[in-house]
Amino acid sequence: MEKVSLAEKFDLFNDYWSPKIAGEINDSYVKLVKLKGEFVWHHHEGEDELFLVVKGSLLLKLRDRDVWLNEGEFFIIPRGVEHLPVAPEEVHVLLLEPKSTLNTGNTRGGMTVEHPERI
Amino acid sequence: MEKVSLAEKFDLFNDYWSPKIAGEINDSYVKLVKLKGEFVWHHHEGEDELFLVVKGSLLLKLRDRDVWLNEGEFFIIPRGVEHLPVAPEEVHVLLLEPKSTLNTGNTRGGMTVEHPERI
Repeated sequence: MEKVSLAEKFDLFNDYWSPKIAGEINDSYVKLVKLKGEFVWHHHEGEDELFLVVKGSLLLKLRDRDVWLNEGEFFIIPRGVEHLPVAPEEVHVLLLEPKSTLNTGNTRGGMTVEHPERI
Repeated sequence: MEKVSLAEKFDLFNDYWSPKIAGEINDSYVKLVKLKGEFVWHHHEGEDELFLVVKGSLLLKLRDRDVWLNEGEFFIIPRGVEHLPVAPEEVHVLLLEPKSTLNTGNTRGGMTVEHPERI
């Protein structure tokens, strides 16, 4: 195991909505992702998911409210809770989720990443 | 669930080597801890543990090498690997580890925190 610099890893890619695996811990992955624009409404049936904003601001839309996350803030989406990430400007996010988690959850489609790359 | 600001949470306590639970995700806790000085050598039998430095610099001594972590860097200690965290100056760390993880691992003693507080 080597240490991971978040800034160095984020410098390695520029595509949006395509999480990269940056670490493996127990049954989960630490993933890094750049977001810009609007994703798709989805939920994860049996998996909680953590969003930590490393740079920029992220809007997490839930069915009952909006949550704005700024740098140094995190939110854990409980399993089963529908959410829609929206990034008016580019945002860098650290995700923590079980290895089994698919980015689009219950909604497979054009934005689904079946096999995230490792960086 | 509410969002968590790392800076606001770190402002809530000042004791060292006493991890606080700041989030719950699947079978794991997100914990925040302030470190200063030297801990004790220990390992966790069946649990990987993530250290992410939020502020300051942390030395993770392993039996075969030293790893310095600066702000925005993380390291995952694989299960079974002995480690000794050393903080020459105060450092703020986000930990991710299974709920079952004891801070001193296999080495119970004066620094063991059996029931971490929630913040």
